[in-house]
Amino acid sequence: MDDLQLHGLHIIQNPKYFCFGMDAVLLSGFARIRPGDRVLDMGSGNGILPLLLSAKSRASSIVGLEIQPACADMARRSIAYNGLEGRISMVEGDIREAAGIFGAASFDCITCNPPYMKESHGLANPRAPKAIARHELLCDFSDVAGQSAKLLKPGGLFFLVHRPRRLAELITVLCRVGLEPKRMRFVHPYMDKEPKMVLLEARKGGGGELRIEPPLALFSEPGVYSREVREHYGF
Amino acid sequence: MDDLQLHGLHIIQNPKYFCFGMDAVLLSGFARIRPGDRVLDMGSGNGILPLLLSAKSRASSIVGLEIQPACADMARRSIAYNGLEGRISMVEGDIREAAGIFGAASFDCITCNPPYMKESHGLANPRAPKAIARHELLCDFSDVAGQSAKLLKPGGLFFLVHRPRRLAELITVLCRVGLEPKRMRFVHPYMDKEPKMVLLEARKGGGGELRIEPPLALFSEPGVYSREVREHYGF
Repeated sequence: MDDLQLHGLHIIQNPKYFCFGMDAVLLSGFARIRPGDRVLDMGSGNGILPLLLSAKSRASSIVGLEIQPACADMARRSIAYNGLEGRISMVEGDIREAAGIFGAASFDCITCNPPYMKESHGLANPRAPKAIARHELLCDFSDVAGQSAKLLKPGGLFFLVHRPRRLAELITVLCRVGLEPKRMRFVHPYMDKEPKMVLLEARKGGGGELRIEPPLALFSEPGVYSREVREHYGF
Repeated sequence: MDDLQLHGLHIIQNPKYFCFGMDAVLLSGFARIRPGDRVLDMGSGNGILPLLLSAKSRASSIVGLEIQPACADMARRSIAYNGLEGRISMVEGDIREAAGIFGAASFDCITCNPPYMKESHGLANPRAPKAIARHELLCDFSDVAGQSAKLLKPGGLFFLVHRPRRLAELITVLCRVGLEPKRMRFVHPYMDKEPKMVLLEARKGGGGELRIEPPLALFSEPGVYSREVREHYGF
């Protein structure tokens, strides 16, 4: 049980599985959820994004979709512990079948912190929970984007955190399924280093221009989070 | 006649036409030309990029392609003034016919500082030289990318400066013609502002990963170029 230091929230984690990291916190700060929005988090793990979004937004309902039963169970226990059953629900299921599970055009926003790495044949145990969270074993980015395009209402927003080295593929796939990149932000460990993460907003049936925001540096000096990370992202 | 403050180079410019700017200087610093490379500059204007690249690289030959006779003429006079006829040549012609003019797989590298703006029906004079340099009137980015893909040798490099707001389209088009984005750098007026330019390297028959470099800030404070711009880009 870890204290999220946000609205008194707590989360149940198990180090054998994938514990939430900076990526989820940054994505929750980047996502622009409007009051009353119905939100889906794809590949929700132990439910960190729904929990953070419940505190940071006025979404009317937040649904987490997770394929691993043990993770979905941890998420449900965290939701109950925090008394958030009225706003957050967890669904056990496969991202590749998400549009069938929820129906087309059923969400205003989708968030996703997907596996970053391509499927790897060198993995010792490709069924291990951490491998599934990190590698594209059970779904790849085309699945995530294709299902999201179906699940979003027209004009709906898709929020993603991923690795910059895959940016060309991410943009190509998003454009192909009709999710137009509209806003992007690169996250650098320090301002003079290469970015380690990219935050991306795409709109269903987008059109218009892409805005790239000023770079976000995580640290101002070793061990010291930058002012923006402390103030806006709540570290 | 302007002094380029680099290897004693001078350039002939005419304010009625498009004068070179920061964009060309940044692109010449970003491009990685190898010794002996044969280089093409697409839409060369008054020849600023060939002139800068002749000083900054050990390219064996640099060809500028320019559709406007008055610009090509200014470029030729600058080349002669600087005594660079042995390394730089100017060809008057249409980007859309470039592969026919030079032949397939005839260059190691291509640079391009293309018109940034979409064709505009509101232009007072769409034949004006500045309009042609700034707006996609005589060619668009698909033409530039498609011809470059033909003109480059396998593994050849394409270097571009463009506006970040068009990044999704640039990447989609480059991937479609087989020029894989490999390196990218955003240029910000200040480190905490949105980028105004993107520098992009793509490789013909790329594969592998995209590297996004640390952000480049033009200024450290008002009126003062940043150290990197002064040192690496020679302002």
